[in-house]
Amino acid sequence: MIDLYTFTTPNGRKASIMLEEVGLPYNVHKIDITKGEQFTPEFIAINPNSKIPAIVDRESDITVFESGAILIYLAEKTGKLLPTDQKNRFQVLEWLMFQMGGVGPMFGQLNHFKKFAPEKIPYAIDRYEKETLRLYSVLDTQLADKEFICGDYSIADIATYPWVAIYEFQGLTLDNHPNLKRWVETIQQRPAVQKGMKVPS
Amino acid sequence: MIDLYTFTTPNGRKASIMLEEVGLPYNVHKIDITKGEQFTPEFIAINPNSKIPAIVDRESDITVFESGAILIYLAEKTGKLLPTDQKNRFQVLEWLMFQMGGVGPMFGQLNHFKKFAPEKIPYAIDRYEKETLRLYSVLDTQLADKEFICGDYSIADIATYPWVAIYEFQGLTLDNHPNLKRWVETIQQRPAVQKGMKVPS
Ligand SMILES: N[C@@H](CCC(=O)N[C@@H](CS)C(=O)NCC(=O)O)C(=O)O
Ligand SMILES: N[C@@H](CCC(=O)N[C@@H](CS)C(=O)NCC(=O)O)C(=O)O
Repeated sequence: MIDLYTFTTPNGRKASIMLEEVGLPYNVHKIDITKGEQFTPEFIAINPNSKIPAIVDRESDITVFESGAILIYLAEKTGKLLPTDQKNRFQVLEWLMFQMGGVGPMFGQLNHFKKFAPEKIPYAIDRYEKETLRLYSVLDTQLADKEFICGDYSIADIATYPWVAIYEFQGLTLDNHPNLKRWVETIQQRPAVQKGMKVPS
Repeated sequence: MIDLYTFTTPNGRKASIMLEEVGLPYNVHKIDITKGEQFTPEFIAINPNSKIPAIVDRESDITVFESGAILIYLAEKTGKLLPTDQKNRFQVLEWLMFQMGGVGPMFGQLNHFKKFAPEKIPYAIDRYEKETLRLYSVLDTQLADKEFICGDYSIADIATYPWVAIYEFQGLTLDNHPNLKRWVETIQQRPAVQKGMKVPS
């Protein structure tokens, strides 16, 4: 059994979508980051960086934090959604890193400055909106001749989807990025994605 | 032979340090990002995201972009600096992701707002300075009882070092984080690190 520590955010949803996709049973532990539950000694023992998501695999007695590492862990545990031949495997890993180092942090900064910051700072909103649209374009080009980011559906898609799916919340449109729009619509029809996006309830 | 596309930045240095550490021969191609060389069609064919570093391994005919994926690739190619037993391997991968998703982007935003932005915006400088110091503390605690981030020297250290090493440039001190300071001083004495930090010349 896997224990999943998560909350209702894009990074959290990567883990729950993955668990649904690979069909592993899991217990959900809601860590309400709006109430500071990520800073309790119990949670810091699981993730010293005080961020969700994190998992504990009771079978192997392994704890993993950081959504990107969790995706690799679950892919390798089940042999799913991460190709094993070197060329395709590294294509998925580089696009996973592109999500971890680019899409996640930059879309996250846009959320902060556009939706949550106490002052509206035009320079910062503009900076992260431009970068988000640039990353949309990179993805749109990549998806021009492929159904999914690396051809077949993989952990690169699972990492990226919950961040692109919040485009309306971010006051953006996908209308200028038709391949990306088609990709979001395809993925949101997957039953595992629909279930994973509702965790924690 | 490996072709390395890089520039004089922390993300670029992760790749050159790694190549020096594992002892693989490589050709350096300097991509001057201050002159827009990351946007040429030739470079976009290597990395559609227009960022350094990237490598092309002529032996396997595999191209890899994103520093985190490059580190995993070179570690697996040489059997060095990434443990193979599951527990230790995922500890290194989660701390690598912590660098890719946290340290890199957040220290990078601090650079932008503190050093490069045309206007000085106190709110943004304060936001990223606080997050940088918080990440210093997470690392400092992790290093309290270990020589390196995951015990033995690994790609997690190589990913993190070039970003912590610029603390003076960022107007910060490591004096309040003695374990982190000791770690930086240990790593900067490694000959491979000294060579890698001078690439591209
Ligand atoms: N790079 C991390 C980022 C995780 C992250 O930023 N989690 C947020 C929610 S989406 C969080 O826990 N924030 C709580 C806090 O910053 O105190 C990952 O991908 O797992
Ligand atoms: N997540 C990427 C980040 C790479 C990155 O940000 N590279 C910077 C230099 S440190 C760059 O090429 N910037 C050029 C640009 O943004 O146009 C990685 O770790 O490889």
